[in-house]
Amino acid sequence: MQQVWIRFRSPRGGVSFGRVDGDRVIVFDGPPYADPMPTGAVLPRAELQLLAPCEPGKIVALWNNFHALARKLEKPAPLHPLFLMKPATSLAGPGDAIVRPASYRGKIVYEGELGIVIGRKCRNVSVSEAASCIFGYTAVNDVTAAELIAEDPNFPQWTRAKGYDTFGCLGPAIVTHFDWRSASVVTRLDGAERQNYPLSDMIFSPEEQVSRISQDLTLMPGDVIAVGTSLGVGSMKDGAVVEVSIDGIGALVNHVKG
Amino acid sequence: MQQVWIRFRSPRGGVSFGRVDGDRVIVFDGPPYADPMPTGAVLPRAELQLLAPCEPGKIVALWNNFHALARKLEKPAPLHPLFLMKPATSLAGPGDAIVRPASYRGKIVYEGELGIVIGRKCRNVSVSEAASCIFGYTAVNDVTAAELIAEDPNFPQWTRAKGYDTFGCLGPAIVTHFDWRSASVVTRLDGAERQNYPLSDMIFSPEEQVSRISQDLTLMPGDVIAVGTSLGVGSMKDGAVVEVSIDGIGALVNHVKG
Repeated sequence: MQQVWIRFRSPRGGVSFGRVDGDRVIVFDGPPYADPMPTGAVLPRAELQLLAPCEPGKIVALWNNFHALARKLEKPAPLHPLFLMKPATSLAGPGDAIVRPASYRGKIVYEGELGIVIGRKCRNVSVSEAASCIFGYTAVNDVTAAELIAEDPNFPQWTRAKGYDTFGCLGPAIVTHFDWRSASVVTRLDGAERQNYPLSDMIFSPEEQVSRISQDLTLMPGDVIAVGTSLGVGSMKDGAVVEVSIDGIGALVNHVKG
Repeated sequence: MQQVWIRFRSPRGGVSFGRVDGDRVIVFDGPPYADPMPTGAVLPRAELQLLAPCEPGKIVALWNNFHALARKLEKPAPLHPLFLMKPATSLAGPGDAIVRPASYRGKIVYEGELGIVIGRKCRNVSVSEAASCIFGYTAVNDVTAAELIAEDPNFPQWTRAKGYDTFGCLGPAIVTHFDWRSASVVTRLDGAERQNYPLSDMIFSPEEQVSRISQDLTLMPGDVIAVGTSLGVGSMKDGAVVEVSIDGIGALVNHVKG
């Protein structure tokens, strides 16, 4: 049965995990991928301040994983997922500001993406085993200081450009048993649609990503794989409001703070 | 006063931190950068199985940070530290095997380096503030699956090539108040010296690295910055024994398991 999990700051100020049940939230004593127990508390959903729905130790972010974008960039489909990492410290949640780095005046771009939330430690898993390693899915804004990537001609700075604090926006919820094949990612900038692409256009499926990447590094519960973006990436002015929306998961809304 | 800290598996099997006092180790209840208290236990140093001396959430690894190597590669000194990240899951300690990835038959290279161990959370710190953010120093073998970096012509795979489990070797100890300016990194492969370079040849000093990188991402206690390597990098055959030695820190010895 499909479940929807959130992480939130409760009215008393503490941080908790909960399972959504209509307009109520059943509070649990830990993250959903760690076999948590209900605490007995039930809270009204509307009163909770949502946080990023998990606390990844690392966010693995793919480059060139959609056929349409690969065609536009005139790049062949890769033979293995091409990835970088965003650090845990880049995490931001629903409603959080995307903070412009003090030292950077260039373009900051949104990249609306699907996120895979890992449910258990996995290493060298097959594609068929990979399904059981995926706890659920969330929405991601893989924010990027685009002009830094090629700033140094000898070393592309993917980690720096994508690793700033608040550049790893996740949320609003983790949804289990999510049928990504029939969903699209829609990104709106100040209300105007900028991205709208079907997830079925993915080059490596989520199960293939988990299997392949688990040959390279151990994935841990709560880790997130941002599956890559497609057409329509663009820059955000200071003050802009950006929304990454996936039907069945919800809308992740953030704003840029200059 | 200079202190030497280790992390170890005690004879009873638990993992602890301790301060070295001659041939004894004074056991503490947490990592040295977290204001730990002595537990009252004192153990003979020789009986302890050393582990990596800290548990970094991330290892930030620099490229092109020594003048001699930059000259050899015919690259200009960078204007800002150029870095990638090795994940927490890449961690290995003294004596651990460097495990060849099942899917990779190419060259695996050693890179002997100095490691900066962060002592407190820091963000946007100045060079003068950076000194107080450095808890101490350790030795690093920044192991790399070298042939993967340029495997895809469109996307250099630094994260994948350097992120495998066991490719982030740290140890044997963390040394505070370490005078890196007068020390050299010596790497031996099966007993033969392969690297021997002075740390004074560094392009960005440790304090400059911490300051500059803290403009890009928040550094957390226990995080490690691998300051980059210099001349003499080379490949290791399966079964090889590799030692990264820094006078005043000690020798970090690992072997390659095919």
